[in-house]
Amino acid sequence: MSATGGPAGRMTPYELIHRKRDGEALPAAEIRALVDGFTRGEVPEYQMAAFCMAVFFRGMDDAEVGALTDAMLRSGDVLDLSDVPGAKVDKHSTGGVGDKVSLALAPLAAACGVRVPMISGRGLGHTGGTLDKLEAIPGFRVDLPVERFRALVHDVGAALIGQTARLAPADRKLYALRDVTATVESIPLIAASIMSKKLAEGIDALVLDVKVGSGAFMKRLEDARALARTLAAIGRGMGKRVSALVTRMDEPLGRAVGNALEVAEVVELLRGAGPADLREVTVELTAEMLVLGGVARDAADGRARVARAIADGAGLAKLEQIVAAQGGDPAAIRDPARLPRARGTYEVPARVAGIVGAIDVEALGLAAVALGAGRRRIEDRVDPAVGLVVRKKLGDRVDAGEPLCVVHEGAASEPRDRISARVQAAYAIGAAAPQVRPLVLERL
Amino acid sequence: MSATGGPAGRMTPYELIHRKRDGEALPAAEIRALVDGFTRGEVPEYQMAAFCMAVFFRGMDDAEVGALTDAMLRSGDVLDLSDVPGAKVDKHSTGGVGDKVSLALAPLAAACGVRVPMISGRGLGHTGGTLDKLEAIPGFRVDLPVERFRALVHDVGAALIGQTARLAPADRKLYALRDVTATVESIPLIAASIMSKKLAEGIDALVLDVKVGSGAFMKRLEDARALARTLAAIGRGMGKRVSALVTRMDEPLGRAVGNALEVAEVVELLRGAGPADLREVTVELTAEMLVLGGVARDAADGRARVARAIADGAGLAKLEQIVAAQGGDPAAIRDPARLPRARGTYEVPARVAGIVGAIDVEALGLAAVALGAGRRRIEDRVDPAVGLVVRKKLGDRVDAGEPLCVVHEGAASEPRDRISARVQAAYAIGAAAPQVRPLVLERL
Repeated sequence: MSATGGPAGRMTPYELIHRKRDGEALPAAEIRALVDGFTRGEVPEYQMAAFCMAVFFRGMDDAEVGALTDAMLRSGDVLDLSDVPGAKVDKHSTGGVGDKVSLALAPLAAACGVRVPMISGRGLGHTGGTLDKLEAIPGFRVDLPVERFRALVHDVGAALIGQTARLAPADRKLYALRDVTATVESIPLIAASIMSKKLAEGIDALVLDVKVGSGAFMKRLEDARALARTLAAIGRGMGKRVSALVTRMDEPLGRAVGNALEVAEVVELLRGAGPADLREVTVELTAEMLVLGGVARDAADGRARVARAIADGAGLAKLEQIVAAQGGDPAAIRDPARLPRARGTYEVPARVAGIVGAIDVEALGLAAVALGAGRRRIEDRVDPAVGLVVRKKLGDRVDAGEPLCVVHEGAASEPRDRISARVQAAYAIGAAAPQVRPLVLERL
Repeated sequence: MSATGGPAGRMTPYELIHRKRDGEALPAAEIRALVDGFTRGEVPEYQMAAFCMAVFFRGMDDAEVGALTDAMLRSGDVLDLSDVPGAKVDKHSTGGVGDKVSLALAPLAAACGVRVPMISGRGLGHTGGTLDKLEAIPGFRVDLPVERFRALVHDVGAALIGQTARLAPADRKLYALRDVTATVESIPLIAASIMSKKLAEGIDALVLDVKVGSGAFMKRLEDARALARTLAAIGRGMGKRVSALVTRMDEPLGRAVGNALEVAEVVELLRGAGPADLREVTVELTAEMLVLGGVARDAADGRARVARAIADGAGLAKLEQIVAAQGGDPAAIRDPARLPRARGTYEVPARVAGIVGAIDVEALGLAAVALGAGRRRIEDRVDPAVGLVVRKKLGDRVDAGEPLCVVHEGAASEPRDRISARVQAAYAIGAAAPQVRPLVLERL
C-alpha cells in the first residue's frame, strides 16, 4: 500500500480522502482522476471506500457532484441521438411499490410527439423495476443493441431497454462497493449514480420523480427535497432541461404490485380507467415531459394533451406498437388475460375493523418479493405472474375479515400464512382517518 | 462482494459499519469479531477502511476502545513476565523531535529498582524513534529473541527492543490500512494502537508522555488531553496502573536532533549536565515510574531518587550495562567521541535579529529527515551521524548572522542551502518575547 503515486501535479487518492474528510470541496479535475483511477483498478477499493464514507459525512457541493457525475458518465459509452429529430426526454423515478408509471408514460409522451429513449433498471430490494414489468409481456426484449434502440426511438418514438455493460461502468463498480460499505445512503453519491446513467442516454431533458414515504428510499420530505434539488442541479449544470417532482409513496401507487398485474393495470389506465392516483401521477409526469420537450405550452396544456391521448386510444396504440417493435406480443396488451397468470389467488383479511391510518409500503413490497415478484439475491428469477392487488388504501374503512389484498401466488411463493402475516402487519388500522397529503408534494 | 456472511447471531461487517456510521456504540464481542476477521483476511480491507472512517467521525466510547485494544493485543503474543520479580513499568511517548528521554529513563528507572521491559519503534514522519537512536551505538542489537529480552529484564533490570512480527499483528495490519486511507488521526484508533502494543509487553504499570505542540502529532491541548484520557482509561480498564503527563513539544527537547547526537546528549544528562528541559522531563517521567512501581512514596521522593541516580553515576553505569548486554560497545558511552561522526558541520545563521517567538518543530524534524536522520520511505536507511544541534530555543535573543543551529551533514544529506532555508523558515523571530508555558502541562 502506498499513500503516494499520483501523476505529477495530481493530488494522490490519500490527499483527496484527507481533504474530503476535513470538509474541503475538491477540484473537478481531481474528482475525475479519482474516478478514472478507480475504474481502471489503479485506486484500490479500500481508498474508494474511505472516500465514500468521508463523502457520507461531509457531503459534496453542486460542482463536486457534477464532476463526479460527469466522470462516471464518461467512464463508458454516451449515446448520441442528435440525428434523431425532435426533443428526447426521459423520466426517472427513485423507486417505489406499484410504480408502473414508465409503462404508461413512455407511450403517452411518444404519442404526443416527444421522443423517449428510456434505459431502465430491475427491481431493487422492496421496489419493482421497469425491466421486470416489461418482461412480463410475452416475448418482450429489453436487451436490444444500441443501434436498434436508436432506430426505435427514431421510428416508433420510444424504446425501453436495460443498462448495457458499457453504460457508466464506473457507477456499477462504485455502487457494488457502496453496497457493502454502508455508503449507499448519501445524497451526492445517489444523485451522481442516477444522473450518470440517465445523462448517458443522449437526452435533452429529464423529468424526475423523487418519491418520499414508507415505500421510498427517502422516508423524510427534507431528504427527498435535497435529493431532488441535487439531481436537478446536476442535470441543469450539464445543460439539460430538468423538472423534479417530489411525490408521496406512503401507499402503493395504484392497486397492482407485481409484474404482469402491473402491466394489466397500465392497460386499464390507457383505456381511460384504472386507479385515480396512478392516473394523476402519470398525467403530471408526462405533462412535464411535454413541456420540457416543447410540445406543450405549459403544464395545463400538457395535461390536456395527455388526457386526449388516453381518451382517443393513441397511448394504448403506441404501447402496442412499442411492444411489437421490441419482440413482444401486442395481443397481450389488447387482451391482458393473455399475460402470465398466477396458479392461485387468495384474500388476506383484516384482523380488526377501522380506518387504514398508515401502510408500511416497504413491508408490502417485501411481501411481493416473498411471493416471487422481486429478487432477494441478484441471481434469483422473478415470477412475472405473482403479486398483490391492494384492496384497501389510506383512509379506507375496513371491516374485520374484509380483504386488505388479493394475493396472486406462484410455485416459489412463501406459504399463505406467512404472506398473510406480512400483509396484515403492514397495515395500521385505527379509529381516526389519516390526513392524506396531495400526491405531488413539491415541484422544482 | 457480499454484505452478509457473519456466523449465526453475529452482526455482519456491513451492519457494524452501518451502526457505527449512525453513531451507535458497538458491543465488545462484535468489535472483537471484526478485528479477528480482519486479521484472518476474512473481513476485506474496503470494509475495514469504511469502518475506520466511520470511527473517525463518530468516535468510540471507553468500552469500545477497550474492546478494540484487547482484540488487537490478543491477535498476537502477550509476554508473560510474571516470573521476573519486582514491578515491570514502561513509558510511552506519542513522539516528538529531540525526544531521547527513553535512553536516559530506562537505565535511571532500572538503577532505582524498577524493571523496564521496553518495546520501541522507529522514526515516523518528522519524529525520531528510540530504535534508531539505540542503533547509533556501535554493535547495539534491538532484535533480540523474546527469551533473551525476558532474561535481560530479569538480570539487568531493563531491555530495549523492537516490535516482533508476533506482537499485535492486527495493529500492524490496521495501521498500514489507516495510513493510506486518511484514518490515522482518530483518537480511539491511535489509543488502541498504542495500548495494544504496550500491554503486550507484560507490564504492571505504564507512564504516558502525551506531547502537544508544533512538533507533536497533537497540535492542540484539548486533543492531547483527550488522547491522554483515553490511553489512561484503556490501561486502567485492563487493571494496569497508569500515569499520563501532557508535555509541551513546541521546541525540540534538549538541543540534539539526530541519532548519535542524541545518544551523546543522554550521556551528558547522565553525567549531571545537559539541557535543563531534557533533564526536567526525564526526571518527571522516571519519578512517575518509580511511584507506579512502588519504589518511591510520591513524586517528590521519586524525583530525589532519580536525581541521586544521576549524581552518583548509577544511571550512566546502568546504561553501559544495558549497552553491553545488547551487544553494543560501552566504550562509546564512556567516550561519545566514539559514536558515528558526521563528515562535516556548518552553521545556519539567523537572517534577522530579535527574539525566537515560535518554532515550527515539525519543520525542524523534517530538516533532520532531509539530512538523513530519519526515513522518507520505510525502506530508507538512516545515517546515525547526521542531525541538528539547536542553538536557539524559545525566548532566546538572536543577532542577525548568529547561528540558529549547527548542522551535522552526511553523504545523502540535502544541499546546504536547502537545509539552511528549512531551518530559517522554521524559526519565527520577532520583537516580543513569547510566553513560555511549563514543560509538564497536565497530569492525569
